[in-house]
Amino acid sequence: MVSKKIAILGLGTVGQGVFRVLRDHQAKITSQLHHSLEVKKIFVRSPEKVTEEFSSQAEIVTDYQEIIADPDIDIVVEVMGGIDFAKQCIEGALQAGKAVVTANKDLICEHGAALSQLAETKEVDLRFEAAVAGGIPILNTLRNSFAGDEVTEILGILNGTSNFIISEMTENGSSYQEALAKAQKLGFAEADPSADVDGLDAGRKAVILAKMGFGISLNLDDVMIKGISDLNALDIEIAKNLGYVIKSLAVLDRQGENFACEVQSFLLEKSHPLAMVKQEMNAVYTKSKAGGEMMFYGPGAGELPTGVAVVSDIIQVAKNQENDDYQVFANYSLDEKVHLSAQANYPYYYRLAIQDQSQGLKTLFDLLNQEGISINHLGNYQEGMLYILTSPGSYSAHQEIAKQLESAPGVELLASYPIFKEEKED
Amino acid sequence: MVSKKIAILGLGTVGQGVFRVLRDHQAKITSQLHHSLEVKKIFVRSPEKVTEEFSSQAEIVTDYQEIIADPDIDIVVEVMGGIDFAKQCIEGALQAGKAVVTANKDLICEHGAALSQLAETKEVDLRFEAAVAGGIPILNTLRNSFAGDEVTEILGILNGTSNFIISEMTENGSSYQEALAKAQKLGFAEADPSADVDGLDAGRKAVILAKMGFGISLNLDDVMIKGISDLNALDIEIAKNLGYVIKSLAVLDRQGENFACEVQSFLLEKSHPLAMVKQEMNAVYTKSKAGGEMMFYGPGAGELPTGVAVVSDIIQVAKNQENDDYQVFANYSLDEKVHLSAQANYPYYYRLAIQDQSQGLKTLFDLLNQEGISINHLGNYQEGMLYILTSPGSYSAHQEIAKQLESAPGVELLASYPIFKEEKED
Repeated sequence: MVSKKIAILGLGTVGQGVFRVLRDHQAKITSQLHHSLEVKKIFVRSPEKVTEEFSSQAEIVTDYQEIIADPDIDIVVEVMGGIDFAKQCIEGALQAGKAVVTANKDLICEHGAALSQLAETKEVDLRFEAAVAGGIPILNTLRNSFAGDEVTEILGILNGTSNFIISEMTENGSSYQEALAKAQKLGFAEADPSADVDGLDAGRKAVILAKMGFGISLNLDDVMIKGISDLNALDIEIAKNLGYVIKSLAVLDRQGENFACEVQSFLLEKSHPLAMVKQEMNAVYTKSKAGGEMMFYGPGAGELPTGVAVVSDIIQVAKNQENDDYQVFANYSLDEKVHLSAQANYPYYYRLAIQDQSQGLKTLFDLLNQEGISINHLGNYQEGMLYILTSPGSYSAHQEIAKQLESAPGVELLASYPIFKEEKED
Repeated sequence: MVSKKIAILGLGTVGQGVFRVLRDHQAKITSQLHHSLEVKKIFVRSPEKVTEEFSSQAEIVTDYQEIIADPDIDIVVEVMGGIDFAKQCIEGALQAGKAVVTANKDLICEHGAALSQLAETKEVDLRFEAAVAGGIPILNTLRNSFAGDEVTEILGILNGTSNFIISEMTENGSSYQEALAKAQKLGFAEADPSADVDGLDAGRKAVILAKMGFGISLNLDDVMIKGISDLNALDIEIAKNLGYVIKSLAVLDRQGENFACEVQSFLLEKSHPLAMVKQEMNAVYTKSKAGGEMMFYGPGAGELPTGVAVVSDIIQVAKNQENDDYQVFANYSLDEKVHLSAQANYPYYYRLAIQDQSQGLKTLFDLLNQEGISINHLGNYQEGMLYILTSPGSYSAHQEIAKQLESAPGVELLASYPIFKEEKED
């Protein structure tokens, strides 16, 4: 059987996963193709670190041009991460008429449109299933299974680090710092966790979901992003008593001409399917006009889950190449214009310190009233601290309230989160 | 733009859904193709029942040969249900070189292999995503996204009627009969609910999952099937107090050479992702060697969700036809032989009536002991009635215990269910 030749750029966690999945599941993979798949070359920067497991099976190269220039290589797999150099390599591969599979969300978020355009011009495949939610095949599902449907809402738990930290805080009452330290110890958070806990990682994935799910092209700047580092275990506890969990969600919400895309912590009803997504797991929940509600749950990262997502792309590319064919992966663009808003209308949870209850409450009521927002629920957490659940209001209204509270006498805003209910009130 | 012509066989709930999804999402669909899709003919038996919504847009025919013989028609969509006549129509369409999309699980369960073979011989597509779990795109996912992975376990909540009834019993303490009546009233159960509540419907879907997920060809006879009609609210209550829910599950379990495929009620740990699947919803939970655990959740039936699954197949077929291409849908066959067993090893829940406690318990202990099974937990539910949770044992051991209990003096077996824990003990 003739083999199709693959080059892997990068041999970190994902690169090793791709190599091992291709090796360990060769029999099944080959049975679905007319070719076997062979890793011919692996590009690394530090060849001295490559163990025999890899170097005995593939040629290790330190100049990526050796891969671009190799006419034998059919498919280039980019799993290095980073933007500029990865872009240069992928452009080179596409220019040389090679198909590319990448797991690089940062790159696809920023340069996905241009790279897709180049791939289409060169009539080769460019696929990136593993860029969002690791092992969950959400991009292929949005592309293929929602091809005849119209997505109206996507909620994603897209960052395993953040979800792990919040889970720890929720289940063990840990502080943010304790939970982060545990995540780092277990390898679920990096030494510098900022891209994860600040919401940037999830924001980039949201940009890719906007394109694949809604056909809407965004920049990262279009996404309102708030991280989890100021999350307080107190709010998690209060939320729990009110029937909610706190989750850091990417929310993509289309209502007619209005589209909002954001990442932040929400109070989410305990009965919502996403509420059960714990620890480092990811999930994507969709609502669509015909399909109704669905959820896709699985590992968001990890050597083998991410590896298998990359390999499923490789197999699809190999099938296409066997038919002298290619597919445009991000093949849907919404015809209509949408109006970007920061956030859909939500009820909010506020926790406040109030010195003089009767005076403080009056100030609070007046402020809310000015924005047309009322209080649906009010509870005292302890002497001088209370929480309220409001009626729904616009993002700007809630922003204005928060701003006014900063200078209001005797009242201090300690925390505020939007509340996600499946049936949003207007 | 040239249009690709479709014929729909059958205009029941799913047929209407297919028609409406094609009509209502035409803009998005067309944007992904070089053709528009047009329903040219609809086959029905009772044309007098067809409303203007359909008859004004397509030619209504009562002889399916008019569709087979029409050289304009590219894709035949079979959504009538039933076996013999549907098979005849599909064979005719495939023989005529037309691609076929069907939602017919009964037919695919029984004749899927032969029809797939015929489609491959004629080099046309035969797709059937909607046959399992309605709107959830599980077959495409197993086919494409697990192409480089090896599935070891599939658990499915595949029958919305059964899940609705069990949910009602669990949440409202209803009896089986009350819950069934409510399901019938709400349209979630048919007047004759037997195919659903006896587990046949789920069994047929399990046969299709065995092929698409494991590459294993089964007959319906190979699936051990137990329905839910003898389910007692008492066991649901006791299970709840022990930290379990009762769910009717299709379980496909591969452990090396051993493969078990069954449908029956299980005690399932509350923390399991499937435990949150309520009412008429469906879900498929998978474990695979590289991907780990995933779950796919959504509507298992309904006009539009099933319609959109059929339409996603139609779009894929249209894309293939535009490239003068076709794909074998069930394209994976496991090379190795597997040994079929009725059920994997499980711990069991037994509820028993015991007249004389000391004598009865001795009889029980002795019986279990003979089969190498011990009691991990024992509780009194009320005077003369107790329940036990056992250590894991083979299906034949538990069968033997049940059989012996029938003639044991002073002990009566009232209910027994296997217990599903994610980490199975051996």
